[in-house]
Amino acid sequence: MTRIAAVDVVDVRFPTSDALDGSDAMHPDPDYSAAYVVLRTDGRDADNPRRQGHGLAFTIGRGTEIVCKAVDALVPMVIGLDVDELSADLGRFSRMLAGDSQLRWIGPEKGAIHLAVAAVVNAAWDLRAKREGQPLWRLLAGLSPEAIVDLVDFTYLTDMVTPAAAVALLREQQPHRAERIAELEVTGYPAYTTSAGWLGYDDDKIRTLCREAIADGFNAIKMKVGANLDDDQRRAGLLRSELGPDRLLMTDANQRWDVGEAIEWMRALRPHDPYWIEEPTSPDDVLGHAAIARALAPMKVATGEHAHNRVMFKQLLQADAIGVCQIDACRLGGVNEVLAVLLMAAVAGVPVCPHAGGVGLCEYVSHLAPLDYIAVSGSLDGRMCEWADHLHEHFADPVSVSGGRYRLPSAPGYGITMRPESIEQFRFPDGPVWSERVSRG
Amino acid sequence: MTRIAAVDVVDVRFPTSDALDGSDAMHPDPDYSAAYVVLRTDGRDADNPRRQGHGLAFTIGRGTEIVCKAVDALVPMVIGLDVDELSADLGRFSRMLAGDSQLRWIGPEKGAIHLAVAAVVNAAWDLRAKREGQPLWRLLAGLSPEAIVDLVDFTYLTDMVTPAAAVALLREQQPHRAERIAELEVTGYPAYTTSAGWLGYDDDKIRTLCREAIADGFNAIKMKVGANLDDDQRRAGLLRSELGPDRLLMTDANQRWDVGEAIEWMRALRPHDPYWIEEPTSPDDVLGHAAIARALAPMKVATGEHAHNRVMFKQLLQADAIGVCQIDACRLGGVNEVLAVLLMAAVAGVPVCPHAGGVGLCEYVSHLAPLDYIAVSGSLDGRMCEWADHLHEHFADPVSVSGGRYRLPSAPGYGITMRPESIEQFRFPDGPVWSERVSRG
Repeated sequence: MTRIAAVDVVDVRFPTSDALDGSDAMHPDPDYSAAYVVLRTDGRDADNPRRQGHGLAFTIGRGTEIVCKAVDALVPMVIGLDVDELSADLGRFSRMLAGDSQLRWIGPEKGAIHLAVAAVVNAAWDLRAKREGQPLWRLLAGLSPEAIVDLVDFTYLTDMVTPAAAVALLREQQPHRAERIAELEVTGYPAYTTSAGWLGYDDDKIRTLCREAIADGFNAIKMKVGANLDDDQRRAGLLRSELGPDRLLMTDANQRWDVGEAIEWMRALRPHDPYWIEEPTSPDDVLGHAAIARALAPMKVATGEHAHNRVMFKQLLQADAIGVCQIDACRLGGVNEVLAVLLMAAVAGVPVCPHAGGVGLCEYVSHLAPLDYIAVSGSLDGRMCEWADHLHEHFADPVSVSGGRYRLPSAPGYGITMRPESIEQFRFPDGPVWSERVSRG
Repeated sequence: MTRIAAVDVVDVRFPTSDALDGSDAMHPDPDYSAAYVVLRTDGRDADNPRRQGHGLAFTIGRGTEIVCKAVDALVPMVIGLDVDELSADLGRFSRMLAGDSQLRWIGPEKGAIHLAVAAVVNAAWDLRAKREGQPLWRLLAGLSPEAIVDLVDFTYLTDMVTPAAAVALLREQQPHRAERIAELEVTGYPAYTTSAGWLGYDDDKIRTLCREAIADGFNAIKMKVGANLDDDQRRAGLLRSELGPDRLLMTDANQRWDVGEAIEWMRALRPHDPYWIEEPTSPDDVLGHAAIARALAPMKVATGEHAHNRVMFKQLLQADAIGVCQIDACRLGGVNEVLAVLLMAAVAGVPVCPHAGGVGLCEYVSHLAPLDYIAVSGSLDGRMCEWADHLHEHFADPVSVSGGRYRLPSAPGYGITMRPESIEQFRFPDGPVWSERVSRG
């Protein structure tokens, strides 16, 4: 019998604020970071990353240590578990972590403790997929509808979707799985890029990056908005003229506005034909998003990267508040809760366009987006997966994007295994990248 | 000039799970706990608790260390601040803490980081009130409408209430403040008790406690429900027969149900005439609460102890999801965010009945509930403040409840200063109460 022998957690931070990569209206200086988790077993060759479970929760600098502390609080529930039993019932595992009767008080299912749950649950999925020798998406795409539904916690969801309804939905898609896999092996999964439109970039850099993106095959580009309306209008005009009338321009306000302000601001940007406005206001404001969506239609409202659990997505879908559903692989409590949201979005007929970027998020969603098409929604209509070309060099199996499309991952696992030398170099505060900064003052 | 010289944070836990005090359907074994914060200045007599700012975030055991870690992350923003400047603009202070551009990622304004903000903001209010020689409620009741409104962050609220509308509302109440203070000095503020109805208590204990509560002057009692319908019916019948037809019986499910289940279960309890059902489902489910409220009217739906910020309360009020608004003094980000919710509840005409119990919550709300009457809502109609007779002996200025009524606090500060010997005895894991348990195994 193989057991979980240790759970390592490392605070890893990349000094991205130096170049204003990732700068937006609410987060002017992010240092892309992760609470990074490694599950080690007592089995053979346990120091080999290919035999460990790796997972991370994405953060942006300060506060990563809090998520690491939250992982520590989960460790006693994980140490000693039989890896086969764990792998056979990852639904129970994720419910156990999210449902601890004392820890849930500091959530429930939100904030630091839920980010920690995501990192650990995803690490357990990575371990299972590596042991089964399959990339995560293929492992999941090989499960029966009943097995997939067993992974999902339907608590609080049954007024929108029941386990029986979910099984029925998955059964309808099941006969088409193989042909869709074959299709994606050839075409890849459509992507859009955010790398061109960070708020901290100047116009020349934006123009250059936009032209490169179009040359690389992207037909959809997202820009950050919300700091200054004149700037936004100028940049939107610049991007629209580069994109031409047919490519998509998306906008992202990163929670900058009140409801009324969001409506006014985006009406002012309408001449540049934005396809969606993302995070127009507080991520908690379901009714606010719904009001904005009604006022701005047919422009779509998109949100999700800060929607902290399945109950928030349920309401966003019930209230017709979103036209685009942006799951986040580690804001939600890991693979299991992502499956819950994929199912609800399919029920509602709302396309899922995963949030990515940061560090590791593209690696995660390169598994989730194809899975949605293959087994859940069965559609590519209005679907595209975010892409930002940062920090992929730190991963053992970096995501592959070409021709504006994500290529299906082929390495076993969930793709999030970071190169040991990257972890060592960027660990905070003692890795050389940070200790040198401290000594420089 | 006096500055903040140090911020101490202590993990304090009381082993309440031994007696099943506080047991409910989702939290069977809480150890009432706190992330306890002390602001120390560089002024004279700085070791005297009466010259320090004390605040806490309430927790229930495991996870308190995570909130303490989150407080640590806020400390660099607090150390060195001029205490006079801080006291003069606590609105700016609370916005600074809640708005840190990196820390907000692990919220925003929810979970461990927001609990930490609450503890620190409340400690700053305690410091200000002690320096001004007034109990917090009286300090706030002495501020102009404009000064109160300046304390509130209206971000994301302006589709419900603007600063100008809030000033107008407060001005309308201002002429009545003195007479209401005089009234409450005599009558106290109405309370209800939860001490009788914990899920872990047997019928005899419930009956005895109910009779004692009635003898003590309480006309409203709350029971925990949601674990077993037969038990709930028997206990509700027992309590109703003790209470008679005119006293109020409230019920609290602590998030146990899905939406449909909540409606069915409470319909079954209707013969016992529950006045409200509290936390029937996920605290995040605004639309779910609204559906339950529509189905069960005229029974009221109450929630708030897990509503993590002002945006959640805004929606609960906008959607007519709650008939009773249960603010929590340290789930919300401290006094400032509580003021935001008091204002919105007054706009909506929904009575505020603060959540209390745990450890320190009664001490906190003994200031907030009277303030609501004196300066904001101007009404006692449907208002009552939760009371549970646990752990008050640990506070330097424990709350006083008699004749079923909270007495107005008179000691300077926010009432949350814990006795030094209690902190020493119950600090986790090194205080004697806990280290002895460890050594006993």
